[in-house]
Amino acid sequence: MTSVVETLPVDAEPACRPGALRIGQLGLGNVGSALAGLTHRSAAALHDHGISLETCVALVRSVSRPRPAAAWVGTVTDDPDLFFAQRLDIVVEMIGGIDPAFALVRRALDRGIPVVTANKSLVAVHGEALSDLARHRNTAFRYEASCIAGVPFIGTFERRPLASRVDGLTAILNGTSNTILTAVANGDTFAAALAEAQRRGFAEPDPTADVSGRDAAEKLTLLIRRFGQRLVAPAQIPTAGITGIHPTDLRAARALGGTLKPVAHASWTSGTLEAFVSPAFLPATHPLAGLSGATNGILIDAPLGRQCYIGPGAGPNVTAATLLDDVYEVATEPHVRTPPAIASTVTTPQWARESGWFLRIATDAPAADISQLLATYGVWTSRIECVDGCVHALTFCATPRVLRAALDAVATATRADVAGYPVLSAEEPAC
Amino acid sequence: MTSVVETLPVDAEPACRPGALRIGQLGLGNVGSALAGLTHRSAAALHDHGISLETCVALVRSVSRPRPAAAWVGTVTDDPDLFFAQRLDIVVEMIGGIDPAFALVRRALDRGIPVVTANKSLVAVHGEALSDLARHRNTAFRYEASCIAGVPFIGTFERRPLASRVDGLTAILNGTSNTILTAVANGDTFAAALAEAQRRGFAEPDPTADVSGRDAAEKLTLLIRRFGQRLVAPAQIPTAGITGIHPTDLRAARALGGTLKPVAHASWTSGTLEAFVSPAFLPATHPLAGLSGATNGILIDAPLGRQCYIGPGAGPNVTAATLLDDVYEVATEPHVRTPPAIASTVTTPQWARESGWFLRIATDAPAADISQLLATYGVWTSRIECVDGCVHALTFCATPRVLRAALDAVATATRADVAGYPVLSAEEPAC
Repeated sequence: MTSVVETLPVDAEPACRPGALRIGQLGLGNVGSALAGLTHRSAAALHDHGISLETCVALVRSVSRPRPAAAWVGTVTDDPDLFFAQRLDIVVEMIGGIDPAFALVRRALDRGIPVVTANKSLVAVHGEALSDLARHRNTAFRYEASCIAGVPFIGTFERRPLASRVDGLTAILNGTSNTILTAVANGDTFAAALAEAQRRGFAEPDPTADVSGRDAAEKLTLLIRRFGQRLVAPAQIPTAGITGIHPTDLRAARALGGTLKPVAHASWTSGTLEAFVSPAFLPATHPLAGLSGATNGILIDAPLGRQCYIGPGAGPNVTAATLLDDVYEVATEPHVRTPPAIASTVTTPQWARESGWFLRIATDAPAADISQLLATYGVWTSRIECVDGCVHALTFCATPRVLRAALDAVATATRADVAGYPVLSAEEPAC
Repeated sequence: MTSVVETLPVDAEPACRPGALRIGQLGLGNVGSALAGLTHRSAAALHDHGISLETCVALVRSVSRPRPAAAWVGTVTDDPDLFFAQRLDIVVEMIGGIDPAFALVRRALDRGIPVVTANKSLVAVHGEALSDLARHRNTAFRYEASCIAGVPFIGTFERRPLASRVDGLTAILNGTSNTILTAVANGDTFAAALAEAQRRGFAEPDPTADVSGRDAAEKLTLLIRRFGQRLVAPAQIPTAGITGIHPTDLRAARALGGTLKPVAHASWTSGTLEAFVSPAFLPATHPLAGLSGATNGILIDAPLGRQCYIGPGAGPNVTAATLLDDVYEVATEPHVRTPPAIASTVTTPQWARESGWFLRIATDAPAADISQLLATYGVWTSRIECVDGCVHALTFCATPRVLRAALDAVATATRADVAGYPVLSAEEPAC
């Protein structure tokens, strides 16, 4: 492997000042560049807070790509050995994905170097192993930026055992999906909404992970581990993306007094973990119903009451600020460790939860006939609307199994395209 | 001063086990009893988290009052000297008010004993001095439970300098006021709503501090210090309580597409601090508009986006859990200190902010006449409704000075009772 070390601009300060904490950045793309710039611009403010930071080295895939942010970094290299040859006080990982991020983060932790990451895929799949490794090496592994990047709450709960007694959570975790549904609800087509989200930098060039729900499932996995002390793999979580949503669904949802949102939900009150990622109908009074665009939020149901945390979900500047706050915490609180998950058990998540349902039956058959047919199978509609030649309904509680049988019967009888999405109540419990 | 030491129940464990952290409680009333019980019940869970706590001593005003929670406390005394004669690792203050809480907390900190408190009056008036003292004595002073007790956010921001770059905040901080306005909006009288809130334990027997806005002004003071790095006294904050609200106002607010909420607001973008406590009109889409009953919330406006934190505002069990989490943080992170407010300046808060206004003019004069008269004085109505023989209007932006002149003219012309409350926009900036 070749390694190229870029030359510092002549007027740059020396990369590693004595007394400064030395940061090694894994990645110098959008987020990495934002972090390097923010670290540089925040020097005076952080000095007032008693610390001094220096970005000594960044490991990148290709050193030939021009990177303006390299001006704020001592050395830019594509050689991991050269990266780790530096004396590093903190490593910040912003490569994304599992490979090579996992190996590099493990290498840092294994040497006792604290790691801060924004990588939800990594934390979803290997978070517990990496936290364990950090504990064994007496160092820190922090990932506040990996989920609802602009709202600090993961570290808060880690430090607070009483607040951490949580029964379940409901969240909007994917800004791209929420941006698209918000735009489609306002009259855009799905394609135009996606293109606009990509133009504004919310959506990746390949939006599959976002619109399929996979991104939200990864984030939900890490939240379940953190709040529910249960280990699941993202693939174990029943996941439906927003691609099945029709524009008429959003108009009908509004007519039925609510909205469709890309929801991640998990609860573990019953002993069994129930979890899903899916578009869901939220009544207008639901605390997350008003979240539009790239805003994310999490509703935490706890014995002492429901809490809600809402704010920006992502974006390079938001993510960089949260990463730098994690760096500050690691630098100023070297003795604070993430506590282990108390009762880690592998549980198969189920979606057996009784729920009301939001239904679409793309038929011009009379609503009364549809309602009657559903009732025959034990699914009772509470409201039914005909919007744009399509029947939409809200139902009373039914299990997914009962619903599936009823929808299959309707599909057979009407030859209509049918779909059902869960209804989340504005108050707990849901049913 | 006489001192009475209660005898432990025979089957109780010894009060101060070797290795356990020794808590001294200032106060053993509703919150103090809840904390003593919770500390006792949480022993196993906290042991799993690596700490062991013991409530060694509680200082009370009157030892003759029967206190079932005394069973969980080694010694109950009314003698401060006896209290401080114990070896104490952490002091938790739940007396409330300034005197004697201030002197006792100072005495603890002065000895290097960390203090955790739920006392917003104390933190509002002496928070900076006590934090300074704690820093000088190399110990901790924490007060998460003093404001929106059920939502941890104050400590979170203290640890995160980037997240702490905040331009302003809007909050619902008083559960009693919000409970009463919610009930009145649903058809209760003010008196019945207050009595019900008292019966359910939300409101104090003397609700003056709550309904006058003083409680919210104290909490706002500590939030301004924490988030705005500015020192103000609660009395400097223009404060209006909910007692001037008429039931018709709440009906009219709904007709005008929003709701009246007891709001605390501060912003410091302009360099000058602007702050007020007042009922305010929130459009239905405002993130705090849906908060009912004893739920509190804070909206934080930051350069990187708006964040919102919502949850239970008070109650003995909620407060005790948050106090115990603060105790846990102090116990496990003895090296973490509250950073000093960077730029502490005494500023006179102003309420010169241009704002839309929600107006009540208790007259049966035609709405068109009122609208015209207001316009003569430079106040333009955007919507106007006649509800229950009263004119209510929403206006476009006007300064408080212009509004006052216009309302005075209307009052003179119509001999009507008039009132104006600010309108807070669902999006920032307000005007």
